[in-house]
Amino acid sequence: MLPLILQPRDSATQLADRLALSAAITEGVHLPTTDFPDWLAERGRVNAFRVDRIPFAGLDGWSFEETTGNLVHRSGRFFTVEGLHVIERDGPYGDGPYAEWHQPIIKQPEVGILGILAKEFDGVLHFLMQAKMEPGNPNLLQLSPTVQATRSNYTKAHQGADVKYIEHFVGPGRGRIIADVLQSEHGSWFFRKSNRNMIVEAAGDVPLLDDFCWLTLGQIAELLHRDNVVNMDARTVLSCLPVPQRATGALHSDAELLSWITGERARHDVHAERVPLAGLPGWRRGEMAIEHEAERYFKVVAVAVQAGNREVTSWTQPLFEPVGLGVTAFLTRVFDGIPHVLVHARVEGGFLDTIELGPTVQYTPGNYAHLPEKERPLFLDTVLQAPVDRIRYEAVHSEEGGRFLNAESRYLLVDADELDAPLDPPPGYAWVTPDQLTWLIRHGHYLNVQARTLLACLNATTAGSR
Amino acid sequence: MLPLILQPRDSATQLADRLALSAAITEGVHLPTTDFPDWLAERGRVNAFRVDRIPFAGLDGWSFEETTGNLVHRSGRFFTVEGLHVIERDGPYGDGPYAEWHQPIIKQPEVGILGILAKEFDGVLHFLMQAKMEPGNPNLLQLSPTVQATRSNYTKAHQGADVKYIEHFVGPGRGRIIADVLQSEHGSWFFRKSNRNMIVEAAGDVPLLDDFCWLTLGQIAELLHRDNVVNMDARTVLSCLPVPQRATGALHSDAELLSWITGERARHDVHAERVPLAGLPGWRRGEMAIEHEAERYFKVVAVAVQAGNREVTSWTQPLFEPVGLGVTAFLTRVFDGIPHVLVHARVEGGFLDTIELGPTVQYTPGNYAHLPEKERPLFLDTVLQAPVDRIRYEAVHSEEGGRFLNAESRYLLVDADELDAPLDPPPGYAWVTPDQLTWLIRHGHYLNVQARTLLACLNATTAGSR
Repeated sequence: MLPLILQPRDSATQLADRLALSAAITEGVHLPTTDFPDWLAERGRVNAFRVDRIPFAGLDGWSFEETTGNLVHRSGRFFTVEGLHVIERDGPYGDGPYAEWHQPIIKQPEVGILGILAKEFDGVLHFLMQAKMEPGNPNLLQLSPTVQATRSNYTKAHQGADVKYIEHFVGPGRGRIIADVLQSEHGSWFFRKSNRNMIVEAAGDVPLLDDFCWLTLGQIAELLHRDNVVNMDARTVLSCLPVPQRATGALHSDAELLSWITGERARHDVHAERVPLAGLPGWRRGEMAIEHEAERYFKVVAVAVQAGNREVTSWTQPLFEPVGLGVTAFLTRVFDGIPHVLVHARVEGGFLDTIELGPTVQYTPGNYAHLPEKERPLFLDTVLQAPVDRIRYEAVHSEEGGRFLNAESRYLLVDADELDAPLDPPPGYAWVTPDQLTWLIRHGHYLNVQARTLLACLNATTAGSR
Repeated sequence: MLPLILQPRDSATQLADRLALSAAITEGVHLPTTDFPDWLAERGRVNAFRVDRIPFAGLDGWSFEETTGNLVHRSGRFFTVEGLHVIERDGPYGDGPYAEWHQPIIKQPEVGILGILAKEFDGVLHFLMQAKMEPGNPNLLQLSPTVQATRSNYTKAHQGADVKYIEHFVGPGRGRIIADVLQSEHGSWFFRKSNRNMIVEAAGDVPLLDDFCWLTLGQIAELLHRDNVVNMDARTVLSCLPVPQRATGALHSDAELLSWITGERARHDVHAERVPLAGLPGWRRGEMAIEHEAERYFKVVAVAVQAGNREVTSWTQPLFEPVGLGVTAFLTRVFDGIPHVLVHARVEGGFLDTIELGPTVQYTPGNYAHLPEKERPLFLDTVLQAPVDRIRYEAVHSEEGGRFLNAESRYLLVDADELDAPLDPPPGYAWVTPDQLTWLIRHGHYLNVQARTLLACLNATTAGSR
């Protein structure tokens, strides 16, 4: 007879209780939330940095490859900017509306780690967050996960410093896994990029280094209600928390929901092929930017960075800069007392597998302003015109500042009714509960990064004493 | 107050009881298992057919494209045979062993439907199976799902007959979803191919057509113990059944298991690029076959088919023909009374996302016979030399006969001990329970097609009075 070595497959209930407690505690043991702005400002003062736009010719180590026109680094590492040609046939058998476009895209095939370390203080789980500068952030300094490391980072392509706390996430000394899942990055800007989203409970003592602070989920929820404080990497990792389930019912059973997703994957016939950046139809390259000829969507630009608290002290790099402020929203309705959100099965050219579930609305309105009303994206006007008493959550957040410059969106949760958003929605949309999203998010490639931000925000609205 | 419109998210328990009952019933209401061989033979007599090998020059509508040498159909549909160039870097940061190879591969980007229809007779779930000829099956006629349709099939590229029973799986009249998931096909032979695996409980009466029969799970389990009776498409769909869970414990919690899979995905750095079939290093094209210069792995060949019960009555097509009989096995061990199987995180060049969980052993031994002992695949000799009292299950099954010619493997479940397969296995291997596999299989791209066959076989060993 062997000794008992098995463990319970699922310890979610016990963990959920501890997460609920952390969400209810709005003052942590380390840093009062009221002191947080001063702390963050102080970290900004200690770590001097500046970002300047430069022409492509001013990039150091980056150049346009002769044959393809792709923007590449001489080391062959980091990422490249290439062209993408997308053909999408819709309809049950790919026989529906036909779309075709070209765009620049970032190719960065390596898998990075976005990791948040957790630890109990006074019986309450706290999460280790970092004040981190990224050149594309509109305010430069935001709150990031404990670890935000590309593979190049920790294999030393930068020839810079080690990644702090990385030993808690990889190797023999790592702690207890709370979540560990490959999630997609922006499918409109990245070609099949995913990162490892990890939450780990530390084993043993953890020294607190400069630029880091321990916060409860209640504190982080408070900060998620402020503009441009919690960065995208932190938001996506937080969305992967196995928060307590609130209901056992839903408009669609889990089996029906999975079937709907499978059907949406099968009915879209998407062909995305990498092509040379040189001569990309509809796009033109100038000295300072690659831009769309109608000045829509986004630009590829270059910046020079001077910083003190990064792995290296100065560098230049390309960034993608969206044209205009985005609007990213879930419409929400309550059915039989249970809140639901309206997800959209979105095709983005860079997705690994055809579609992922996105927000109800995820658009930069300026890109559609030229269209007649009936060709404008579904539900966009409902969100843009929502009266203030329908808005359950609103904050401006920016996308990953290491790749995207001033990529800001208004993130919203908007109450809807049968007139705005019917019980039986149009094809490509479905009502799901937040519990179902939390259930799906244990697995990769179900929720896109914008839907994950909204799920983190939605969880934040029920934290603390709100 | 709205009327109550919600449903339980999870009705697995009730369904599991019904599946358990069907598995326990070894005689269905329609066709006694003892009469099955005669029924199948009769279907073979009614539907005359023959398959002949032909030179590539004898293919009708298929030819080698001038510039690429790819084997294509003039309609641009069905599939193409192209080249694949794979580079794999192993190790925690892609810094480990380095592998590189070229091979022909089938590109067929469309998503087909493999569907089994279920219906209760006398209170017991029966499943509608079809006697279906495929040119690559060694015995031509095997038992297939109710529906086995490529997108070309139901958009009429064949200009043939409608797909029978398809209305139960798509469109407004379809039944209750039991399973519906995109699962990968063979990653060594297909480039990123997946099919929709569906099990649907019919609403209302279902006429029984020629070539079809209703069987209980107990009957199907009996047939899964026979060689070359239940085809691959049926096996993969059956593996997706949400069979009753047997235990709440496992060597690794579900969170740890998902983390291990994520880690395996992240540590393998695989680059697979389609290249022209012409001039593919290591492969040579003759009049009758494209084959590897060492005569290993597989050949690309061509056949002419005459058949009566297919959508069209005669055609020619290419097929992949493996060199030699495969061996595909799970090593199994019981820990604390709970059976576990040893899964292998396998890299196959055609996988969508780097690795999927495969059997402990999945090899054609002849491909490795030339290697010194210590370079031979792990666990292969343990399976090949297993004494008969260690073999819990064994049958020869063939892979999809619409694409693969005589692609037979011995499928085995083999009891192991600490000497054969330690509690702490080598990197890339993990002990999981069958329950955990059933839990994972609701989602795509976790289990490869060979592991799914073995899961169906494993479930079959516990059915009936066995």
